[in-house]
Parts: sequence; structure tokens; C-alpha cells
Amino acid sequence: MIMGSLERGKVLVAQGGGPTAVINQSMVGAVLEARKFSNVEFVYGAMNGVRGIINEDFVNLSKETTHNLEMVANTPSSALGSTRDKPDLKYCQEMLKVLQAHNINCFLYIGGNDSSDTLRIISEEAQKAGYPLRCIHIPKTIDNDLLYNDHTPGFPSAARFVSQAFIGLNRDNWAIGGVFMTVVMGRNSGFLTASAAAGKSLSEDGPHLIYMPERAFKLDSFYSDIKQAHEKYGHCVIALSEGIRDTDGTLIAEKLSYMDKINEVDAHGNKQLSGSGSLGDALVAKVKENLNIKRVRADTLGYIQRSFIGCVSDVDQREAREVGEKAVHYAMWDKRSGTVTIQRTGFYSVEYSLKPLDYVAGKTRYMPDEFINDEGNNVTDAFRMYVRPLLGSGFPSAYNLRKHPVDKILNR
Amino acid sequence: MIMGSLERGKVLVAQGGGPTAVINQSMVGAVLEARKFSNVEFVYGAMNGVRGIINEDFVNLSKETTHNLEMVANTPSSALGSTRDKPDLKYCQEMLKVLQAHNINCFLYIGGNDSSDTLRIISEEAQKAGYPLRCIHIPKTIDNDLLYNDHTPGFPSAARFVSQAFIGLNRDNWAIGGVFMTVVMGRNSGFLTASAAAGKSLSEDGPHLIYMPERAFKLDSFYSDIKQAHEKYGHCVIALSEGIRDTDGTLIAEKLSYMDKINEVDAHGNKQLSGSGSLGDALVAKVKENLNIKRVRADTLGYIQRSFIGCVSDVDQREAREVGEKAVHYAMWDKRSGTVTIQRTGFYSVEYSLKPLDYVAGKTRYMPDEFINDEGNNVTDAFRMYVRPLLGSGFPSAYNLRKHPVDKILNR
Repeated sequence: MIMGSLERGKVLVAQGGGPTAVINQSMVGAVLEARKFSNVEFVYGAMNGVRGIINEDFVNLSKETTHNLEMVANTPSSALGSTRDKPDLKYCQEMLKVLQAHNINCFLYIGGNDSSDTLRIISEEAQKAGYPLRCIHIPKTIDNDLLYNDHTPGFPSAARFVSQAFIGLNRDNWAIGGVFMTVVMGRNSGFLTASAAAGKSLSEDGPHLIYMPERAFKLDSFYSDIKQAHEKYGHCVIALSEGIRDTDGTLIAEKLSYMDKINEVDAHGNKQLSGSGSLGDALVAKVKENLNIKRVRADTLGYIQRSFIGCVSDVDQREAREVGEKAVHYAMWDKRSGTVTIQRTGFYSVEYSLKPLDYVAGKTRYMPDEFINDEGNNVTDAFRMYVRPLLGSGFPSAYNLRKHPVDKILNR
Repeated sequence: MIMGSLERGKVLVAQGGGPTAVINQSMVGAVLEARKFSNVEFVYGAMNGVRGIINEDFVNLSKETTHNLEMVANTPSSALGSTRDKPDLKYCQEMLKVLQAHNINCFLYIGGNDSSDTLRIISEEAQKAGYPLRCIHIPKTIDNDLLYNDHTPGFPSAARFVSQAFIGLNRDNWAIGGVFMTVVMGRNSGFLTASAAAGKSLSEDGPHLIYMPERAFKLDSFYSDIKQAHEKYGHCVIALSEGIRDTDGTLIAEKLSYMDKINEVDAHGNKQLSGSGSLGDALVAKVKENLNIKRVRADTLGYIQRSFIGCVSDVDQREAREVGEKAVHYAMWDKRSGTVTIQRTGFYSVEYSLKPLDYVAGKTRYMPDEFINDEGNNVTDAFRMYVRPLLGSGFPSAYNLRKHPVDKILNR
């Protein structure tokens, strides 16, 4: 038993936004660590994020066995459920009433920039109400788009999945030929799409072209890029972010989509990009119209990018666990709210620090310029150096036959 | 060095049809075994399947290092390349001329039912021409649709990928809610789509509905199935074969598709189903029209099902290696052409035997009735028992938090 400087009360953990392959590591890290503190009466979990707070839908995580928590930690997606609710001021005030009623004085919220913004509002409201609530944001997002973080838990495992996928997709397209594009998640930031290049072994390996939201997507350049790569390599593999936009900032998915029926806008004002193959299909049609290449295909990686079991970075697992654990330390021993951030200190090691919530809340981090090539259609070696240690141990490699051609005899 | 009863000459290996995650195991198994025989002058590989034979595009695989071959064996997709050419009689006669010119008296062709049919024609033409050519078909297909085989190499690894994908997709959809469908490969046979159920742990886990080409797909039943499952489980995960057809046998992909521009027919008369998200997108639109459920999404697994690196069944790896090795044994010591087949002899063990080429050539194996439930919208436990040992060792499991609800206080 350890003593925290926080008053006796309950700790609440919740998970927000899109699930990741390691978000349960953070939850379990926080729960196991919080259970060690003598001033923590119980550790509660809110079912379905902020929605569960409004509904007083809590589970008592102090009653879970350590073994089962460890099993859940290795299970992808959010074991407490999630929500896309975007709390406004009133919603946050209602939540605060529930937290007070249950004597919860520490709220740990695992999520991305939307979730950290919610936490910022609650934290401010608690202060106004004079209620001693410690609010700690635990970072999580496959998009890797939180400021003040070298990277965010969830991204390394998603990047590992994407890069392993492209190793195979490159070999598959090489064997059959033609143009093959794959749409990767990432509404605003291209980190995950860029990770398609992380598993490249030979310089002629695909992806040969990578399009990220940080650079304007022009159809004419797209056609000429493909034509050139297809001639050079005999086939062409492309990684495309779902969030690519034209020079005006309009989403290409929106511009080309014929799927008006299924397009949705969520509570955050985000247009639905995932869960549909329409961007890839539309680009296939365009490429076929404009280039004389017979076999053109598009896949959309979809939700498996963030939820696939059995393809997780062990670096990511450990860090996701640690940010959960550190969140409890900060809540118990530091007298302030904040967001846990990750700094890289070596090749490869990290340190954690607590930053003010408004450093990350509602803000977006983009790919730095040195990670994108001049043409805006590929990544640099600097990016590959950045991402490589995050992929973890046991990362697989592809091998090719060496060239031992046989002389022709008939030579027709 | 071993002596074969075959005359001195060369062995040719080729890979046909769609790649798999273990097709190189079969190639390497054949090459390493053939290199042990004193009557084998060289082992050649044909680049891009039958196309490479026509073009005399051969590589000398006797000159590959054993180490590199082992590395290639663990690499997904076809290291020799593939083709979708469908040889007719004339094409086969041309190939025979090339084989004779290079003194190739043993042709090992790794492929599915189309490839075995090609081999059958060449074998017959060789016999007519009085040329002593041994033709052995090495089975490969993720569709698992070869007759006289308990299962076919490539299927177990694809099944492992699909079942691991659905473990995560089920947890992801549970966390967020709504209806989520995923389109799985399999033009005529539902084995791979059915494998979506192989990783289910609790009875309430998804996929809650599975639609295979073996049963007519009716939109009305589809809607009522979803409504019922969504009410019962609070969310609904669906596995759909790309090859589902209506009562008339028309492909649903064809019936609902608005993507005429990108639809293609290959040389085998097969309509393009993969490399497009249009079936899933069309069904999402239909479900939204007909059911009052807000969040409906579809993903299409695409080519990663057959090419993903790092998610391979070790059972599949070993068997793919063995069928390559056995093919050489049959060619060297049995005085006949044929197809290597796999029989299950225990839970779990297999035996191999050589069957006449026309047993499998151009024929399709479907899911047996006992693997599909009465409603035609799910698999049976018999199927799950069938598929489980094929997935290999180290298969991951998902775990849930146990239920420890907290009493409400405000109870609004």
C-alpha cells in the first residue's frame, strides 16, 4: 500500500474515441496502479466513455482479478466501451454532478484530442465549483496527432499492422501486376499512411507512392506519378490517406463520392471516411479513365487497422501500460490536472511528463516537413528512422529470389 | 543424392492463380527436395506461371542458396510471380514445345482448380506426343474449394487472418455500437467467410451472422436477421462472402453494384469481386434504407487476406512445404501424373496421396451441409471443430471484463 497526497476517494477510468489495439493496456496500467494506493477507496470504470458518466453506468474495477485484467490488457479495442458523444458545457456540468455524488476525486480519461478537450472543460468546471477533482488525460490515438508527444499509444501497433499489410500487398501486386492502391486511416495527419513504407526492404519495393493529407492531392499529378512508377517498376503500389484533400481543402472522398446515401457527419462534425470503400473505388475509375492500364484495384484497410489481434508492437504495449501507470502517479502525487506526454530520449528510449491539458486539447499535430519528400508523394528516410523502433520486436521481413536467368533456346 | 526412376532431365516449378501466404513454402519444398535427386539436372522456375513457359522466362533455382530459399518460403505471395492467363489447347501445345526444348521432364504446378485443369491438358498433349512428361499439381487456394482434399494449403493461413480480424472487429463494433459488416473473399465456396467464426469465445461474440455463397441471399431475411441480432446483442457483426448470390444465382455484387465502370471480367470469365468496396457499400445503403439503425458500416478485407505477413498458421506452413516435397516424390518414384491431395487422419494429423488430375481439375468443392445452420445465416459447431486445428499454434484469444456493476446514486 502506498499513500497518495490526494484525499480519500474514488478513481474513475474511462475510454473515449476510436479503439486501439493497446487502449486496454492503458486502462489496466491505471487500474492496477491505482489499486495500490491506500487513499483510493475503489477504482471505477465508466461504460461507454462520458456517456457512462451521465448514465451513472459504472463498474467496480477493484473487483476484477489481476489475471483477468492482464488478459483484457492484451485484447484490442476498448473493454469499457466507447462513445462518439461530444460533451458541451452542460453535458460536462452534468458529469461533474455524478462524479461528486460518487465521491470520485480522480478522473483518468484515455483518448485523443477530442477527449482531452472534454477533460479540460470538466477540470475547469470542477475548479469553479470548488470540487477537488484531479483530471488526467491518458494519450491514445492511431492517428498520432497529439501535440507535445513524440508519438501516441495506439499508433505504433496500427503502424505495425499497416506496414506488415503493405509488405504482403507489395508482393501480391508484384506477382499479379497492375496498379494497386490501399486507403489508410488518418483524417488530418498522414503518419499512419506514411507507415506503409516502414516495411520496405529493397528500393523497388512498394508502396511506390504515398499520399498524405499534409499535401494537396492533385489528380493530374496522381496520374503522371502512377504512369511513371508503373513503367519503372512494372507494377505500382500506392498508399493513400482517407483524408487527402485538394488544393481548396475539400476532401477528395467528398469530391468524388457517389455514395451520398451513406455519408454521415458525426457529433464532432467529422465526415464519415472509414467503413466505406468509396474513395478507393472512385479513384480506380478515374485512373482507368485516364491511363491505359488494365488491372487497377483499390482496397480500404478499414477498422482492422486499429483492432487487429495478434499484430501488436511490444514497444506500444509497454508504453500504453506506462502512460496509464504514470497518470495515477501524477494524480496521486502532483497537485494538478494535465495530459501525460511521451518524449523520445534515445534510439530508442522515452520519458514521460505531465503537460497542461490545453497543450493538446482540441489541437492537431501534423507530419513535419522533413518526413515528406519534395514531390509530396512519398516519405523520407527521416520518417522511416522515426517510425522503425516503434514497430517493436520480431518485425517480419520479405525476401526475394535472386536473379539466375536461364538462356532461351527457342527464342520466339 | 537419391536416385529417381525418372529419366535424367530438368524439373520445372511454376505458381498459378492468386497468391497465398504459404505458396512459397510449396515452391521451396519442391525445389529443395528435387535438388537431392541425381537424375535432376537442374530445377527451373517459370516466371509468372504459364506465361513464363510461353516466353521461355526461366530462372535456375538450383543456383539459389538454401538459406535464401528458406527466407523466401516464409515470405507471402508468389516469389516466381503469377498470371491470370487461361491456357487453351493451342497455348498448352506451345508450352509443351518449350518444355521439350529445355529437356524438362517434370512439371510441378502450384495452383487451384484452374491451374490443375491446365496441367491436365498439357499432360494429355505430352502423352499424345509420346513425350515422357510427369505433371504434378500441387494444391493451393485460400478458397479451400478443391475436391478430394480435407483442405488446401493457403486456406488455413487466410482463415487465421480472417478469424483474428473478426476477433478485433467484434470488440471494436461492441465498443462503438451499430451494424458492421465485412466482405470476405470466396467466389463460390464459403469456407473462408465461415472462418470469421473461428475465433469466437463467448456465445454473444460476433460475427452474429454469416452469409456464404452456398445459400441464396435474400435481402428481406438479411434485414430481419440484422434487426433481431442488433436487438439481442446491442450491436451486430456480419461476415459476408463476396460471392453471395440471390435465388436465381445472380451475384449480389452484380445486382446492387453502381460501379459498372470498374467491373471487369478476367480471362476465366470470372467477374471481378475483389479490389472494390462496392458490395459492402451497396448493402450499407440498403440496410440504412430499411432499418432504423444509425451507425452502419462495411469493410472489405481485400487482398491482405491472402498476403499478410506475420499471421500465418504453422500447420499450413508445414503442410504447404510437405505437398511440395511429396510432389517431387510422386514425380520421381510413381510413374504417373496427378494431383497431391490432403486427407485428415486424426485431430489433428494428415496423410497425402496422389489422385488423377481430373479429380480436381476445373471442379469446385462447396461447404458441406453440416457446416451451415438451418437458417443459412451462420456456421455450425461442426465447422468450428473442422477449422480449429488448421489455425495453428499461438492463436490469440480476446477477454472481457467481468460484470461488477456499481449502484446508481442519482438515478436520474
